[in-house]
Amino acid sequence: MWDRILVNCNIATMDPSVQGPFGAVEDAMIAIDSGRIARVGRRIEMAGFQAKQVDNLGGAWVTPGLIDCHTHLVFGGNRAHEYEMRLQGATYEEIAKAGGGIVSTVAATRGASEAELVEAARPRLQALMKGGVTTAEIKSGYGLDTETELKLLRAARALGESEKVRVSPTLLALHALPPEYRERRDDFVRIAVEEMLPAAANEGLATAVDAFAEGIGFTIDEVRALFDAAKANGLPVKLHAEQLSNLGGTAMAASYGALSADHLEHADEAGIAAMAQAGMVAVLLPGAFYALRETKAPPVDLLRKYKVPMAVATDCNPGTSPVLSPTLMLNMATTLFRLTPEEALAGMTVHAAKALGLADEIGTVSAGKAADLCVWRVNRPAELCYWIGLPGPERRIVAGEDA
Amino acid sequence: MWDRILVNCNIATMDPSVQGPFGAVEDAMIAIDSGRIARVGRRIEMAGFQAKQVDNLGGAWVTPGLIDCHTHLVFGGNRAHEYEMRLQGATYEEIAKAGGGIVSTVAATRGASEAELVEAARPRLQALMKGGVTTAEIKSGYGLDTETELKLLRAARALGESEKVRVSPTLLALHALPPEYRERRDDFVRIAVEEMLPAAANEGLATAVDAFAEGIGFTIDEVRALFDAAKANGLPVKLHAEQLSNLGGTAMAASYGALSADHLEHADEAGIAAMAQAGMVAVLLPGAFYALRETKAPPVDLLRKYKVPMAVATDCNPGTSPVLSPTLMLNMATTLFRLTPEEALAGMTVHAAKALGLADEIGTVSAGKAADLCVWRVNRPAELCYWIGLPGPERRIVAGEDA
Ligand SMILES: [Zn+2]
Ligand SMILES: [Zn+2]
Repeated sequence: MWDRILVNCNIATMDPSVQGPFGAVEDAMIAIDSGRIARVGRRIEMAGFQAKQVDNLGGAWVTPGLIDCHTHLVFGGNRAHEYEMRLQGATYEEIAKAGGGIVSTVAATRGASEAELVEAARPRLQALMKGGVTTAEIKSGYGLDTETELKLLRAARALGESEKVRVSPTLLALHALPPEYRERRDDFVRIAVEEMLPAAANEGLATAVDAFAEGIGFTIDEVRALFDAAKANGLPVKLHAEQLSNLGGTAMAASYGALSADHLEHADEAGIAAMAQAGMVAVLLPGAFYALRETKAPPVDLLRKYKVPMAVATDCNPGTSPVLSPTLMLNMATTLFRLTPEEALAGMTVHAAKALGLADEIGTVSAGKAADLCVWRVNRPAELCYWIGLPGPERRIVAGEDA
Repeated sequence: MWDRILVNCNIATMDPSVQGPFGAVEDAMIAIDSGRIARVGRRIEMAGFQAKQVDNLGGAWVTPGLIDCHTHLVFGGNRAHEYEMRLQGATYEEIAKAGGGIVSTVAATRGASEAELVEAARPRLQALMKGGVTTAEIKSGYGLDTETELKLLRAARALGESEKVRVSPTLLALHALPPEYRERRDDFVRIAVEEMLPAAANEGLATAVDAFAEGIGFTIDEVRALFDAAKANGLPVKLHAEQLSNLGGTAMAASYGALSADHLEHADEAGIAAMAQAGMVAVLLPGAFYALRETKAPPVDLLRKYKVPMAVATDCNPGTSPVLSPTLMLNMATTLFRLTPEEALAGMTVHAAKALGLADEIGTVSAGKAADLCVWRVNRPAELCYWIGLPGPERRIVAGEDA
């Protein structure tokens, strides 16, 4: 006797071992037991099985719960005023004078308590959940000092404990150089490498380490120092790479066996070949591309050619991608980056799970995995990408329970 | 004794007679009586007044209910499969063979009953409502024969009667040439002018008449014939104009004192001067611009120069703008068209009301108008434009009641 059966549904399993588009199983059933998927199959194959609870889904489509594998969800304040000033024609100087830019977010983040950061982030997380997210990665990176970075990671953990969502916390140790270190960047990198990272690792606050390799961020050599320390502390790495220019970050990250390289608008063939070799995921962030009005899309054809799995995420952050809707990212991945609907949905399910190192646990509707599911009132899975601003699933199930 | 007071709020009245950005009144109160706004003012000015119900909004921002003044919300089927085929590289010929394009929507619409059309459109309308819409314009235009156009207008009316939203129905009499009239377009225009329009007018099913003036739509002279008939039937007109090319539709519409000209990507200075002269509204549709990946934005600077009020709408339709989120349009109007947040919000409130000929009834938070309001948990009105994919207001009030 299973805990629960979902009947009268179609499933986009997104399981590569299931033949056909979306790994679809039509006229299907899903059995759930102890929070995990016990069995998936056509109704006819599962006839006669019993469960404590039977939910008739009336022909809806079931997908894996959406996985948002790249967010900066926890921060103090927001940058709506700066956005407004820019649209009113303010110069960068005027905005900086008014306290704009990442510096303003860092100041607001440092000034907030852990509890305040949790409550500020909660409606954002709830918006993503309403949109179908069952797992969210959350990066630190607005503290730029050890104490505040740990506070951000604790806030991320507290959100995961108080909401029906899995949280995957990442230490973004090299995000921006704090103004007070402008004349001594080596000191800041040393603190990130020797203090921040070991402290986060010791407290078990992060499951991965990230950095921003860019002209306006950190050099490849600075990131190497961080990644060496991550390796020494047993933490996997990932990298914001080739967003605004090509520094060779993807290839460097590949040499560390990174989980993913993210953004990639300016990635080249050598970098992508290296990612393929290392088994990395390419995380595409169409929200930032849209908000920054970029024109150079990531090299999707090369990623396809080298069979690099593509994930898609919100990049939810106050400066360059204040995105609160995962379904909108499915649409933007298809509209702006020309992914197919199947690629886009894989990007927020099976490939996003791989980008988080959670491929065995979540990301497909397959027996043995956690029962994290979304139920959508649509006629075909492509609708999840076709609509612009689709509100979210009819039901969200986390670990087998309506959430 | 009023029916209701909303206290402890800030109001973006959007009332041009209230000084300052957004016509804002901070630390304010709103009194509601018999479904209308009885009084708006600072808390201190309204001290001592009493009401049957007092709602403490805890410092939230109140705006007029959002008005979506351009939608094609009622239609049969959808075009997700066509969208998917196109992204998989199908040619236009292959898509046409598979029954794609507007023809497929027309066929599905003709084949559906009024009740089926209502139920198909209901979740779309509910998505807009969830996003803050309290008034939605709904155009016909997928019937392309008199019977089906009337069925679409009746479906629109039924939606307004069964949901807590005002519906403003428009007869889009000249939308596309049905394939069966390819060799005799004059006959079709004659039917639209002599049959469709009078029938809709006689039954009181439409409050305005619309057409699509474009190379792939109808000529200026064909639209003139329709507008003459509208005039004869006492119905105001509006026009899809200069979306893909400049045919001079705006100036022609101005000569009829049209409510609005919509799209306008290719409008020129003469057309905009004519719109200003005629007191028309420019309805901007960033969802279609985004979905079609257009690069030529409407001439916002000219619209500002000539002080033509700009409205913003979803253009919700199955082919070129399957948009379900009004707040996303606020963001796209600022991100893609560079409207200021105040202009964008005016575009879905005060100016949208004017575009529907309802400026005396809705669109601002002002004494005497209908009490259609949204309550947003934000720190400043600009946040409504800053977030990308904001779910919607915390509360939606229609005619004074929580909806
Ligand atoms: Zn990022
Ligand atoms: Zn339209």
